[in-house]
Amino acid sequence: MVGIIMGSDSDLPIMRQAADVLKTFDIPCEVTIVSAHRTPERLFHYAKNAHQRGLKVIIAGAGGAAHLPGMVASLSPLPVIGVPIKSSNSIDGWDSVLSILQMPGGVPVATVALDGAKNAGILAAQIIGSHDAAVQEKVVVYKKKLEEEVAVKYRKLEAEGYEDYPR
Amino acid sequence: MVGIIMGSDSDLPIMRQAADVLKTFDIPCEVTIVSAHRTPERLFHYAKNAHQRGLKVIIAGAGGAAHLPGMVASLSPLPVIGVPIKSSNSIDGWDSVLSILQMPGGVPVATVALDGAKNAGILAAQIIGSHDAAVQEKVVVYKKKLEEEVAVKYRKLEAEGYEDYPR
Amino acid sequence: MVGIIMGSDSDLPIMRQAADVLKTFDIPCEVTIVSAHRTPERLFHYAKNAHQRGLKVIIAGAGGAAHLPGMVASLSPLPVIGVPIKSSNSIDGWDSVLSILQMPGGVPVATVALDGAKNAGILAAQIIGSHDAAVQEKVVVYKKKLEEEVAVKYRKLEAEGYEDYPR
Amino acid sequence: MVGIIMGSDSDLPIMRQAADVLKTFDIPCEVTIVSAHRTPERLFHYAKNAHQRGLKVIIAGAGGAAHLPGMVASLSPLPVIGVPIKSSNSIDGWDSVLSILQMPGGVPVATVALDGAKNAGILAAQIIGSHDAAVQEKVVVYKKKLEEEVAVKYRKLEAEGYEDYPR
Amino acid sequence: MVGIIMGSDSDLPIMRQAADVLKTFDIPCEVTIVSAHRTPERLFHYAKNAHQRGLKVIIAGAGGAAHLPGMVASLSPLPVIGVPIKSSNSIDGWDSVLSILQMPGGVPVATVALDGAKNAGILAAQIIGSHDAAVQEKVVVYKKKLEEEVAVKYRKLEAEGYEDYPR
Amino acid sequence: MVGIIMGSDSDLPIMRQAADVLKTFDIPCEVTIVSAHRTPERLFHYAKNAHQRGLKVIIAGAGGAAHLPGMVASLSPLPVIGVPIKSSNSIDGWDSVLSILQMPGGVPVATVALDGAKNAGILAAQIIGSHDAAVQEKVVVYKKKLEEEVAVKYRKLEAEGYEDYPR
Amino acid sequence: MVGIIMGSDSDLPIMRQAADVLKTFDIPCEVTIVSAHRTPERLFHYAKNAHQRGLKVIIAGAGGAAHLPGMVASLSPLPVIGVPIKSSNSIDGWDSVLSILQMPGGVPVATVALDGAKNAGILAAQIIGSHDAAVQEKVVVYKKKLEEEVAVKYRKLEAEGYEDYPR
Amino acid sequence: MVGIIMGSDSDLPIMRQAADVLKTFDIPCEVTIVSAHRTPERLFHYAKNAHQRGLKVIIAGAGGAAHLPGMVASLSPLPVIGVPIKSSNSIDGWDSVLSILQMPGGVPVATVALDGAKNAGILAAQIIGSHDAAVQEKVVVYKKKLEEEVAVKYRKLEAEGYEDYPR
Repeated sequence: MVGIIMGSDSDLPIMRQAADVLKTFDIPCEVTIVSAHRTPERLFHYAKNAHQRGLKVIIAGAGGAAHLPGMVASLSPLPVIGVPIKSSNSIDGWDSVLSILQMPGGVPVATVALDGAKNAGILAAQIIGSHDAAVQEKVVVYKKKLEEEVAVKYRKLEAEGYEDYPR
Repeated sequence: MVGIIMGSDSDLPIMRQAADVLKTFDIPCEVTIVSAHRTPERLFHYAKNAHQRGLKVIIAGAGGAAHLPGMVASLSPLPVIGVPIKSSNSIDGWDSVLSILQMPGGVPVATVALDGAKNAGILAAQIIGSHDAAVQEKVVVYKKKLEEEVAVKYRKLEAEGYEDYPR
Repeated sequence: MVGIIMGSDSDLPIMRQAADVLKTFDIPCEVTIVSAHRTPERLFHYAKNAHQRGLKVIIAGAGGAAHLPGMVASLSPLPVIGVPIKSSNSIDGWDSVLSILQMPGGVPVATVALDGAKNAGILAAQIIGSHDAAVQEKVVVYKKKLEEEVAVKYRKLEAEGYEDYPR
Repeated sequence: MVGIIMGSDSDLPIMRQAADVLKTFDIPCEVTIVSAHRTPERLFHYAKNAHQRGLKVIIAGAGGAAHLPGMVASLSPLPVIGVPIKSSNSIDGWDSVLSILQMPGGVPVATVALDGAKNAGILAAQIIGSHDAAVQEKVVVYKKKLEEEVAVKYRKLEAEGYEDYPR
Repeated sequence: MVGIIMGSDSDLPIMRQAADVLKTFDIPCEVTIVSAHRTPERLFHYAKNAHQRGLKVIIAGAGGAAHLPGMVASLSPLPVIGVPIKSSNSIDGWDSVLSILQMPGGVPVATVALDGAKNAGILAAQIIGSHDAAVQEKVVVYKKKLEEEVAVKYRKLEAEGYEDYPR
Repeated sequence: MVGIIMGSDSDLPIMRQAADVLKTFDIPCEVTIVSAHRTPERLFHYAKNAHQRGLKVIIAGAGGAAHLPGMVASLSPLPVIGVPIKSSNSIDGWDSVLSILQMPGGVPVATVALDGAKNAGILAAQIIGSHDAAVQEKVVVYKKKLEEEVAVKYRKLEAEGYEDYPR
Repeated sequence: MVGIIMGSDSDLPIMRQAADVLKTFDIPCEVTIVSAHRTPERLFHYAKNAHQRGLKVIIAGAGGAAHLPGMVASLSPLPVIGVPIKSSNSIDGWDSVLSILQMPGGVPVATVALDGAKNAGILAAQIIGSHDAAVQEKVVVYKKKLEEEVAVKYRKLEAEGYEDYPR
Repeated sequence: MVGIIMGSDSDLPIMRQAADVLKTFDIPCEVTIVSAHRTPERLFHYAKNAHQRGLKVIIAGAGGAAHLPGMVASLSPLPVIGVPIKSSNSIDGWDSVLSILQMPGGVPVATVALDGAKNAGILAAQIIGSHDAAVQEKVVVYKKKLEEEVAVKYRKLEAEGYEDYPR
């Protein structure tokens, strides 16, 4: 079970991509809102108990001065994946990237690219796959599929020529 | 009473400047360490109770992905002054500046300049001074003193000429 | 009484959020335009007399090379809250953030997030609340309300599932 | 077993911190050099076979245009932790941070802070701990120890006062 | 023969400009997709054999954590021109610029401006022209044409006046 | 006479603002296109002779790797005002700002804000006004007018209240 | 007469370079300290009267949130040259550069490079030279001398070879 | 023959690395100083004639607002390799990187990493090698040697263990 949390429902259009990709790996997840700044008690409760409720990985997304992933990492022994989100008042996303990435020694957050919720889902699958051969095999298959999707495109491009390739 | 907290004792050489300046305004303060990431329970306890213990302002300094000021602001109704600190592994201080400054709507942190603990102390005095005429008068005097210190220097520079001014 | 000033009427759509939020705390405010660069005499007059007119806090917003908050802080013993504004010719807002935040020792500006006028209003309320129990209680209630608004959303999200949550 | 690789032996003073911390969790690791740009064949061989050799996590550190973590992630189904390193000709570390963090959809790298090899080791332990209760318990104990180390310091600071605290 | 490759077909609207400009120099080129992260085997095969297939220059474009140009440069003795592309989730293009530019000692990539595929094509022509007098002459003519295009505009502007110049 | 030059006619919508403002000071100007990179001979000829043709100030605008202002400054003894322009492929304008501002010792360019052509015109008027009392008087009047324009607005805002101020 | 002012005597090691270079052009100057934030009244007085005291150009240097050049430009009709200074608590100089450069429409500051006080002096000479043929001739001679200094070096380098050139 | 030029003899400690590496490929080069800003006539003469004097590639290094590579590219049909140099007053090297990289359409500069003169030399060899089989073979050998140097190190590291590896 993977926990997916976000600071606000305005983050859902990005964060749902993590849930969607986990579904393709048949990994169950729960999705909810936990705001570090507006629901700090809930944050504490969620993070302290997550590993005891059977979660294996937590994916936390937030924008601006994004404290959610780091605070969860402070309170839980689980691996925490942080998703920086380029919210409306963000300074081009730098604030969320740096607030999540630059954690002090002792409390890591596994940070993915700006708005990279899909990759957070895949990373969670890889973490689970590191001790679950069936999931790891699905990751191998997923990578194979990525490769084949590119192959379809380059064959088309090479066959038709770049000038006729649909824009 | 002003509470001065910092994420690590390595921040003390900067943060003591806040305490030192408050002393010149005869404003009592307490100084301690509260780490958002290593002592999250302590953070909760400190922030939830600060206003009931009689604190009027909290000054919180931290470096890197600096979550201490914002989390305290999330838990306390007091004005929280955040001091970004350029710690050793910081990316030139941008990480602490943005982690403290870019708080979401509803939860402000009064951010001062990078390593600006002295200014945090003065700002705390100004906040207390806004309802304490004696303290406000001390702020007025302090500003006068700043002006006079500059006056000593420009008079010396004008009198002696820039070429002989001590380097 | 809180003074809200801005460098140009083009800043009003942002800065009015400070006034609106103060209204919810029943804190009176006055709103006007003071341009550091185009009305410097007015700036001097405004800042020198603000505390004598009974203002407790000044909120100053400006964009680009934003000198208004810092110059007011130079002239007034009151706490000054600076709101960096991402104006049209700004370099992504960095110019106003740095012009307001990086004040020299002796002259602090309490800087909030880019376009963070709402938070400036809340911070002013917290400052007033630090010596006015009724206002502080309203801040406590405000934070409670923030929490409840999030609760409504996460209950809905958990009940309906993320896939059906309205976008 | 965790694999720790780096682009150059000049990265070893940073990257050994990952190995050192894994030792405290009694997690075996192997440490070697794999350069994406100077030994690309070795990179391929290493990354393609890592999961079949029994590795559970790969930690990859590199500076400048840091392609090692991303290329390993491209070739292996294992979770890959990337450590950006502030090398001598780096532009303040931004190049390695962005080269590792901003991976495209489908190929995540779990990025930690600049020079954050210690945190990479802890994250690897958390990943292994997510399915190994004994390791997870050690992570819980480790966090407890962090907390206690801070407690020693704040007690000392509170007892002696900040002015006498050793610098 | 110049090889033009890109990480994704979404890069084609930019990268086709390289092919178009090479056509004006009568230099043949081949255009295809090679993804460092999704088709790493293909990358290896392409880069290892390019010089033996008669390619003289490789132009490689990619966005985000752009590893394609650098990995090709690692595997081929040919001059590799890198085109940073400002893709949708890029942090303003800085990620692709730095991932391509900041290559370590021993493995250069000839980097052009963000989205500068047209210039990549011209640079390839200049490289070929450095040993092919006919191509170099075409470069001279091309530069002459650029000059003349400007001349048409400044004559028009000077003749008609700036106020009537079409916007 | 002020010379206004720009690297491309795509810069005219910005650069015409310099000409327009000079007109309000009754200072004659000439407007044309000089491209450092596409018409380097023209650049040389223009810059070498400008002071002998009676120009007093040169205003040069360019975007991206903006070499026009600096190269003109290298060739002419006149004061050169540089206008960084945020062109379409610019990296948020940083490239043109830094290419114009960061001139080496010996060869200054008087740089104004990004897209600040209007200010370049005013600065040219101030330069001419420093030895032409009539022009300086017009600058004084212009500043007065700026002040009055703000006064109209703040009077309206204070009279009507911010809530009814037109957006 | 050129006025050279700076925010603090710690800026003098940089700012004296402006005075030194003006001396080589036989242009008289006065050097003093005017702090926008600590001596705002003095700033007003200085800037309002400068043109009436016979100054032709003002050079103003400051670091951090550097408001001195812009405030002087707001109050004086003279051309104001701004020198951003990389002071000790600056964020790599970006704060002073942006605070000086990004002035709003109507109030230009002629900004030179970070720590570019020498260039500020040369620019002042060029401004005076635009209406004083003798000074302009000195600027021409100065540029000639720059050229000759380089010529001495390249002749030496070409004659002796780069390997024996003194480091 | 490769031409290596730089804006100042202070760039020689970096730029000599290009000459040194060309020597290992037995490619003759000439090294001299050409300053875009202090010797613009020399720049014109050098760049206009370089291809007629038999040069095949030009390597140009400069710091700050680095116009030398771009201006040479404007005047010569040869491929121009630009080396951004982090000079003393540079803003962390960003100014030289952007001034060289962000050339407009039509006039490419092949930019290498900050202070990357060694890579500029290798790139020049690759350009010459694209039509000279003997040089290309030397590039292949050079890459082999890079690989072997890494192999010596990883064998040592693997044999001795990371703890005993010399720091």
